[in-house]
Amino acid sequence: MSSKYKSLKQECYEANMQLDALDLVIYTFGNVSAVDRTNKVFAIKPSGVPYADLKPEDIVILDFENNVIEGEMRPSSDTKTHAYLYKNWENIGGIAHTHATYSVAWAQSQLDIPIFGTTHADHLTADIPCAPPMKDELIAGNYEQNTGIQILDCFKDKGLSYEEVQMVLLGNHGPFTWGPTAAKAVYNSKVLEEVARMAYLTLQINPNAPRLKDSLIKKHYERKHGKNAYYGQN
Amino acid sequence: MSSKYKSLKQECYEANMQLDALDLVIYTFGNVSAVDRTNKVFAIKPSGVPYADLKPEDIVILDFENNVIEGEMRPSSDTKTHAYLYKNWENIGGIAHTHATYSVAWAQSQLDIPIFGTTHADHLTADIPCAPPMKDELIAGNYEQNTGIQILDCFKDKGLSYEEVQMVLLGNHGPFTWGPTAAKAVYNSKVLEEVARMAYLTLQINPNAPRLKDSLIKKHYERKHGKNAYYGQN
Amino acid sequence: MSSKYKSLKQECYEANMQLDALDLVIYTFGNVSAVDRTNKVFAIKPSGVPYADLKPEDIVILDFENNVIEGEMRPSSDTKTHAYLYKNWENIGGIAHTHATYSVAWAQSQLDIPIFGTTHADHLTADIPCAPPMKDELIAGNYEQNTGIQILDCFKDKGLSYEEVQMVLLGNHGPFTWGPTAAKAVYNSKVLEEVARMAYLTLQINPNAPRLKDSLIKKHYERKHGKNAYYGQN
Amino acid sequence: MSSKYKSLKQECYEANMQLDALDLVIYTFGNVSAVDRTNKVFAIKPSGVPYADLKPEDIVILDFENNVIEGEMRPSSDTKTHAYLYKNWENIGGIAHTHATYSVAWAQSQLDIPIFGTTHADHLTADIPCAPPMKDELIAGNYEQNTGIQILDCFKDKGLSYEEVQMVLLGNHGPFTWGPTAAKAVYNSKVLEEVARMAYLTLQINPNAPRLKDSLIKKHYERKHGKNAYYGQN
Repeated sequence: MSSKYKSLKQECYEANMQLDALDLVIYTFGNVSAVDRTNKVFAIKPSGVPYADLKPEDIVILDFENNVIEGEMRPSSDTKTHAYLYKNWENIGGIAHTHATYSVAWAQSQLDIPIFGTTHADHLTADIPCAPPMKDELIAGNYEQNTGIQILDCFKDKGLSYEEVQMVLLGNHGPFTWGPTAAKAVYNSKVLEEVARMAYLTLQINPNAPRLKDSLIKKHYERKHGKNAYYGQN
Repeated sequence: MSSKYKSLKQECYEANMQLDALDLVIYTFGNVSAVDRTNKVFAIKPSGVPYADLKPEDIVILDFENNVIEGEMRPSSDTKTHAYLYKNWENIGGIAHTHATYSVAWAQSQLDIPIFGTTHADHLTADIPCAPPMKDELIAGNYEQNTGIQILDCFKDKGLSYEEVQMVLLGNHGPFTWGPTAAKAVYNSKVLEEVARMAYLTLQINPNAPRLKDSLIKKHYERKHGKNAYYGQN
Repeated sequence: MSSKYKSLKQECYEANMQLDALDLVIYTFGNVSAVDRTNKVFAIKPSGVPYADLKPEDIVILDFENNVIEGEMRPSSDTKTHAYLYKNWENIGGIAHTHATYSVAWAQSQLDIPIFGTTHADHLTADIPCAPPMKDELIAGNYEQNTGIQILDCFKDKGLSYEEVQMVLLGNHGPFTWGPTAAKAVYNSKVLEEVARMAYLTLQINPNAPRLKDSLIKKHYERKHGKNAYYGQN
Repeated sequence: MSSKYKSLKQECYEANMQLDALDLVIYTFGNVSAVDRTNKVFAIKPSGVPYADLKPEDIVILDFENNVIEGEMRPSSDTKTHAYLYKNWENIGGIAHTHATYSVAWAQSQLDIPIFGTTHADHLTADIPCAPPMKDELIAGNYEQNTGIQILDCFKDKGLSYEEVQMVLLGNHGPFTWGPTAAKAVYNSKVLEEVARMAYLTLQINPNAPRLKDSLIKKHYERKHGKNAYYGQN
């Protein structure tokens, strides 16, 4: 493995293995990619390979037009969605897709996840958006690329910033998350799953549970991500 | 162990151990069989043996008329159901039965599991059928063989193909799944359990959640199983 | 440890450790006892000792009048309930008590667990009884012994046999289970917890789910416990 | 590490690691502190450090006015809440804060957890209080210290004793628990999470489930904590 993309493949491999370690996937129900902005390529999991068998050298390298640059295996069936997001959102470094249980349940419900508490507000200030299922002609067409379009349209319609809201539910399908690195994209998948579970339980206990009020949303988001943030060591 | 069925027993043993590893059973609440079409026999777990104690040589070999061909132990109490399915469905290679929690909850609800999302459509295009409980005279009769008849009747009534729909819920009882191999039958048990859990949660979040639309059902099933499938490495 | 009760203590110790291994308890929220009918004594877990610290020699031996026969430690706070059951139910060999989550939730609901499926019928033919909370004067009196009386009254009122129905929910408290051995009592605690979870989920999916019909109750119970039982190896 | 606070740091470190071992946190969603009453200082987890990386020497020592006495790292963002509680509640030795799932779901529901059973009454005789979200001007001000004020106001309003009720839910946020030691504070977080889960399930099974009656509340609390307590070995 003397590839110039060796470290990119390693980053991608490790992030994929985290999906499994964090109980976000069964079998092959997920994929993570990592981008190299300098070389305008990204690394992604090969399609249908069990995590137990996955090796760093199996990772496939593609450009943003979905041409395979390096790799013997067929890339993830969701590759074109990843490529579309990398091409259009310049500041993301990694993308994760799972079929994690609670995230999927909300996606199948076709509902945004309301912001009910500070666990949510520590990460984003908006409800977690659920993009509606695509129109039939888009499904029949270039489906995976159109999935990317669907996500961008959803963010445009709702006036959301992909740098602040690093996650989306695809109606009837499941979550996509992203971030500055592949590891951060996986982190966001785990946080989304936990927030989805908390919101589900909240509505079971109190169907009239109120949304978190604006002052608390702002306070929690700012103390972690604002100019004067005081969470963490940096 | 110089049996001519040594490899068949091994396949059956490993698939049974997977039930336990995948958290689909507690104690002895499940069984898997594997068929040898050439010799017209199948291998099945002995009845009531804990997974921790199970050994490949404990596996029992029977013909399709339920005669024991090889083995010292009594075969699974569900053996006649397996035999009936092997005899009638020529293209299946393995069968699994569990009492996995969410699958059983749907079976006890006597409801088909609606197709709510792509996780489901990646595996089958129909709602997961729930066969009604048997008539009293069939229960009092050759119960386990009649269970096989009940499954076939359910598929005939609903116009389902056992090659596409590789799973069924037995009303008030639990799931049976099958596939080209015993390992694939176990895989289908795990997928069914996860889909059952997602559908349950979906209805809790949104009791009016819509079924997945036809265009998405077709797209997801075809990209994995269609003529031009592009999922996986084959 | 040259006690004449060495093997009884060992049986009791191992059964207690199983509670922990089977995820039926956190901290010290449970206890198991085992009886020696010849010597008219029983062994029980000492009160408040974490499972990680428990040793076979810590187990306390008492007679059926709650006198400590051997042991340095204070016995479980529920000891008198165990003693009362041993004294009155001659054919039980072990008793287990836990605060397992789903069993407790049903006990707190003060509802019997309806028989919804064959997992339940494989073990007993009745709904799992929930004994009502005691009258105030009984609570203020010899509480733990009166708990035993409450259980026996519940069985008398419902016309149940303790040899067939090896489990009860104490309203607002939690489950007690028993069986021919301490290990079997623990097995029944695990089965009860799983059946409680399945019944809970069933009612969430279908609030009008029907009880299992009599023919199926009988068939499943008989094939495992009847005169012509064909489940297991004996 | 030749600090005079070496054993205090060790106590704090071990209690923090327990949060992770008990599945009460993901990532860095929690913190535990331990107090040294003689030296009027407390030890707390540094902010945003993953549990896998945490070392005893990373623990930060502060006085009750939030001045760092020892430590290179920035203390938990919730430090001022801990300091306020230590200053005002003289008999507590440790405090824990988590975002455990069921506890958070109740906090997001803005409802007290009703006392439904003896698992709850074994630990406290009151409903578990949920403090309302703060007023906007308090959120905008010294937020974390005001969180402490909010907790004390809640206890005053409800007439609760912090020595008996060793836990609170902060509306829309999550649980704080405390106790004579940091380890006991963590224990209370685990008990709260389990009681929160049981109460949630109870209401799903029976929305009209009655509160535990006073005689049983008193009996269970007294047998564990009363003058004549007979639970445990002391």
